[in-house]
Amino acid sequence: MVATKLENAINEVMDTFHKHSKKSKDWDQLNLQEMTEIIKEDYPTFLSACGSNNPDGFIRDLFDKSKGENGEVSFNNYMKIVGKMAIIYHKRSHGDMTCDDRR
Amino acid sequence: MVATKLENAINEVMDTFHKHSKKSKDWDQLNLQEMTEIIKEDYPTFLSACGSNNPDGFIRDLFDKSKGENGEVSFNNYMKIVGKMAIIYHKRSHGDMTCDDRR
Repeated sequence: MVATKLENAINEVMDTFHKHSKKSKDWDQLNLQEMTEIIKEDYPTFLSACGSNNPDGFIRDLFDKSKGENGEVSFNNYMKIVGKMAIIYHKRSHGDMTCDDRR
Repeated sequence: MVATKLENAINEVMDTFHKHSKKSKDWDQLNLQEMTEIIKEDYPTFLSACGSNNPDGFIRDLFDKSKGENGEVSFNNYMKIVGKMAIIYHKRSHGDMTCDDRR
């Protein structure tokens, strides 16, 4: 089955996760450094909207809230962060530039 | 700020949501028909993996679990579904073709 445009979009998100996660021992999990690289390189608008005062502190806080018992972030929890980022981008598309992902 | 490849991927997901959601009165919410169109047109691999026995019943069940008090699916809840789909695509990338989004 050929992938659709949106399936390719999901594959892009997944490939970037793997590109970074495979750098360390837990090859399918992100450590803080790997997650920091992804957010800084790939989601600068989100970082600027939500963590411009203290980017590294903001990412560390997000990482701490998302990590599992092994101290790293799984793909499933990474997708929760992507969901949070998408909500911020969605609000911006409607002119709301604040950083609040509640409904 | 120029959008990155992954920001564009999120924008694709968002644009498709809007393309369908704006068809009816609640222009920033999906009704069952709009959600059915998105899943069938844009995420066929997910539908085939998880709902091949009864695609419409599967989508209705997903819709009922995701809708809010107004009976429609918000962008925030739609992103939870995208997250669930991404988890299935991620498992498939590691050779697991089952439809179970738990860790």
